[in-house]
Amino acid sequence: MEKTNLAEKLSAIHDHWNPHVVGELNGQMVKLVKFKGAFVWHHHDNEDELFYVVKGSFDMHLKDKVVTISQGEFIIIPKGTEHKPVANEEVEVMLFEPAETLNTGNIVNEKTRTDLKRI
Amino acid sequence: MEKTNLAEKLSAIHDHWNPHVVGELNGQMVKLVKFKGAFVWHHHDNEDELFYVVKGSFDMHLKDKVVTISQGEFIIIPKGTEHKPVANEEVEVMLFEPAETLNTGNIVNEKTRTDLKRI
Repeated sequence: MEKTNLAEKLSAIHDHWNPHVVGELNGQMVKLVKFKGAFVWHHHDNEDELFYVVKGSFDMHLKDKVVTISQGEFIIIPKGTEHKPVANEEVEVMLFEPAETLNTGNIVNEKTRTDLKRI
Repeated sequence: MEKTNLAEKLSAIHDHWNPHVVGELNGQMVKLVKFKGAFVWHHHDNEDELFYVVKGSFDMHLKDKVVTISQGEFIIIPKGTEHKPVANEEVEVMLFEPAETLNTGNIVNEKTRTDLKRI
């Protein structure tokens, strides 16, 4: 049983919008991801999703507002809720979500990642 | 839907070993807690537990070793694993664990908290 250092794991991630698995517990996964630019509007039918900012900040676009999430903050997006992360600068994010969560939710496009790396 | 700022929430916690609920998703809870001193040896029969250090550091005692967890690091304790957190100085910790997880696991003593505050 070893500890996980987020900065060390993040230094091994060199692309954007590609979640990497760094832990698993109770059927949930802990993932690290770097965002830069605009993602796609999507929702998850069955899974709530937590976004915690490790470094930087990004805007979570929701249908009725935009919430800026900065270092040391998190937001929980309940299942069924349309959302679209937008990062003007690169941001480092920890995700907490069920193992089966697809990054683009109900949408499949060029940003969809089905074969997540474990680091 | 609002964001949660960990530092702001932590400033409202004035005691030790008393987890406060700051979020819930997929039947899991996000809790914030301050540790200081030595906790009790215990395990959780059915739940894995994640400890992420927001500020400071603490020693996670396991039966065969001690792992020091510092700011920006986490450790996942699988169900059934005996563990005992020890903090020489106050440390701020975020926990991810199932809603039903009792802080002292299989042990009930004066540190057991059954009525968790939401902040």
